[in-house]
Amino acid sequence: MNNNGKVYLVGAGPGNLAYLTIRGKQLLADAEVLIYDALIDPQLLDLVSPDCLKINVGKRGGQASTPQDRIDRLLVAYCLKGNQVVRLKSGDPLIFGRATPEINALQTAGCEFELVPGISSALAAPLFAGIPLTDKNLSSCFAVISGHQPEQLDWNALSKIDSLVVLMGGRSLKEIIRRLLANGRSHYEPIAIIRNCS
Amino acid sequence: MNNNGKVYLVGAGPGNLAYLTIRGKQLLADAEVLIYDALIDPQLLDLVSPDCLKINVGKRGGQASTPQDRIDRLLVAYCLKGNQVVRLKSGDPLIFGRATPEINALQTAGCEFELVPGISSALAAPLFAGIPLTDKNLSSCFAVISGHQPEQLDWNALSKIDSLVVLMGGRSLKEIIRRLLANGRSHYEPIAIIRNCS
Repeated sequence: MNNNGKVYLVGAGPGNLAYLTIRGKQLLADAEVLIYDALIDPQLLDLVSPDCLKINVGKRGGQASTPQDRIDRLLVAYCLKGNQVVRLKSGDPLIFGRATPEINALQTAGCEFELVPGISSALAAPLFAGIPLTDKNLSSCFAVISGHQPEQLDWNALSKIDSLVVLMGGRSLKEIIRRLLANGRSHYEPIAIIRNCS
Repeated sequence: MNNNGKVYLVGAGPGNLAYLTIRGKQLLADAEVLIYDALIDPQLLDLVSPDCLKINVGKRGGQASTPQDRIDRLLVAYCLKGNQVVRLKSGDPLIFGRATPEINALQTAGCEFELVPGISSALAAPLFAGIPLTDKNLSSCFAVISGHQPEQLDWNALSKIDSLVVLMGGRSLKEIIRRLLANGRSHYEPIAIIRNCS
C-alpha cells in the first residue's frame, strides 16, 4: 500500500500561529492537501503553498461540521493518491481531538501516518493566565477534563485533585461547581475562567 | 525599573528541536543572555546568536545543579542590565518546571517577564507512543503527577482517573503500581513505560 502518501495529524497549538511547532510549520509548507477545523487561526492557512488543496471540515457559523466518517474517508483517499496530507487540529491532536477514528481509518487502509504534538490549551490557557498547574507548595498534580458531559465523570475523585482544568466548560460551569462543592471542595477556592487564551 | 530588559521563560518542548515553538525559536535568535538547564537538546543552543552569553545552570554529570536562588539572581541581574534574557526550560515552564521562585524573584525586582509555553512531555510522550490520553470510548479525563514523592499524593483519587501520566516515575514505579493496585486499579490494566520520547 506504500505509494509515498502520508498523513500528518498535526497539533496547531492554542490558536496564535506563534505557538505552532517548527515541525508543524515545515509540514504545512510541504503539504499537498490540508484538512483543517474551523477553530484554527486563519494565519496558519497562509503557511501552505499556493497549490495546496485546503479543505475546511470544521463548523462554520451555525452550519453542521463535516461528519467524522467523511473526514476519515478524505484522509484515506488523498493518502492513497500519494499525497502529503496534513490534518490540522486545534491544540494537540490526542487531547480531546477525536483523532481515534481517523487513526483507525488510516491503519485499516494501510496508510502511513505520523502524530505531531501541539501546545494544548489545557496547559497553555493557565500559563497565559499566569497560573502554574503544578507548584512545589500549592499543587503536586493536575487533571484535565472536558466540560461536555459532567455527569459521566467521577467527581468524588476529581474533587481531590490539586489543580483541575476544564476544557469547553462554559455551558456546564454551574453544574461543575455544584458537583465540586458537593464533593468537599472549598467555597473559598479560587477559579479562573479563561477565554481566547492566545 | 523598566530599562527594556525582559526575561522570557520559554518551554523548550520534549527534547527534539523540531517541537520547539516558532515563538521560542525567534526568542532564542534574539536572546542576549541564555540561561538553560542541562536536559535541553544541544541543537537548541545553535539557535542563539554567536555573541549571546550562554549559562548552563543544570546538572552536569554527577555535579550538583546551580542553587535556585542563584538562578533567580542571575535572571534579575541580567534583566536589570537591560538584556533580553531567555530562561529555557525543558517541556513547559509551568509543568513541574519550578518556575515559581523565578517568577517571584522577577516580580519582586520589578522585572518584565513573559511566559512562553512549550510542548510538555506529559502529553508528548504518550503521543509519540501512540497513546491517546483522552478517547471517546476509553478515557474522558487524565491526570499528571510527578513520581518523585508518591507518598504525598491521594492515590484513592488518582486510581479513579481514566488515564494517569507519571513524570519522572522510574525510581518509584514499583511503589506507584502497589498504591494503584491497593486502591482498586486492575491488575490487567496496561501501562506504558516511555523513555527519551522525542
